[in-house]
Amino acid sequence: MKSKLGQYCINVSDLEGSANFYVEALGLEILHRTDVSETCKEIIVGDPQEGARLQLAHHTDRKGPIDQGNAFWKLYIDTDDCNGLYERAVGAGARPEMAPKKLEKWPVTIAFLKDPDGYLIELVES
Amino acid sequence: MKSKLGQYCINVSDLEGSANFYVEALGLEILHRTDVSETCKEIIVGDPQEGARLQLAHHTDRKGPIDQGNAFWKLYIDTDDCNGLYERAVGAGARPEMAPKKLEKWPVTIAFLKDPDGYLIELVES
Repeated sequence: MKSKLGQYCINVSDLEGSANFYVEALGLEILHRTDVSETCKEIIVGDPQEGARLQLAHHTDRKGPIDQGNAFWKLYIDTDDCNGLYERAVGAGARPEMAPKKLEKWPVTIAFLKDPDGYLIELVES
Repeated sequence: MKSKLGQYCINVSDLEGSANFYVEALGLEILHRTDVSETCKEIIVGDPQEGARLQLAHHTDRKGPIDQGNAFWKLYIDTDDCNGLYERAVGAGARPEMAPKKLEKWPVTIAFLKDPDGYLIELVES
C-alpha cells in the first residue's frame, strides 16, 4: 500500500484574484481548473514539472473574509533569487511582512509576504 | 528568477503525537527535525523521493486546541489503496469523516479523515 502527500487546499475569497496573485507575484502557473459544484470552484497552481501544488478553492456561498484561525502557518516558495522575487511580489500587490534577510543560523535568505487573503508565504533562497 | 512551491506548514498541539499519526496512520516518513527556537519545534513528514512535504510546527508557548478557522481546507494523500489506507488510518486513531466512495463524476475513490488537531485529509486513489 503506497501513500504520498499530494496537493493541499486553501479557501480563498476571490478565486481569480488569488490565482493571478500566485502567477503574477510568485511565478507559479495555473495547472488546472475545476468547477466542483455550483458553489465551489477550484484552481490548482504550481509548476508542471516539480514542486508541490496548491489548490485554491472558492465557496461562492461563503461571504466575508477568510478566518485564518491559527491552524495553517505558512507555505514556502523556493527561489534562486529571494530579493528579486520579493520585489516582484510586493510590486504585484503582496503584503510585505519581512524584507529579505540572510539568516545566521541556517545558510538561507528568507523573506515573508502575505497573499490577498492573509496567508503567510515564506520565500527561501538556499 | 525561478520559483516553485515548497513545503507547507501547519501548527499542531502535540508534535510527537502528530508526527506519529502521519507515520503510523498514513504511511509517511519523518524527514527532518528542527528546533527553531526555545518555543518552536518542527518535524517535516513526507516521502524522501516524491510528493509534497508537510511541516508540523509546535509553539510550546501556545496552549489550547488549534483554531481551525476556515482558511486551510484539506490536504491530499495519494494512494493506490484507498480502502486499505482508510482502515489503517482509522485503526491508528484517525477520526473518520467519510468512508471510501467511488465518485461518479471523476474516476477516483476518495475518503475523508481528520488528524489529531482536526485537519481534514482527503485520501485519493485514482
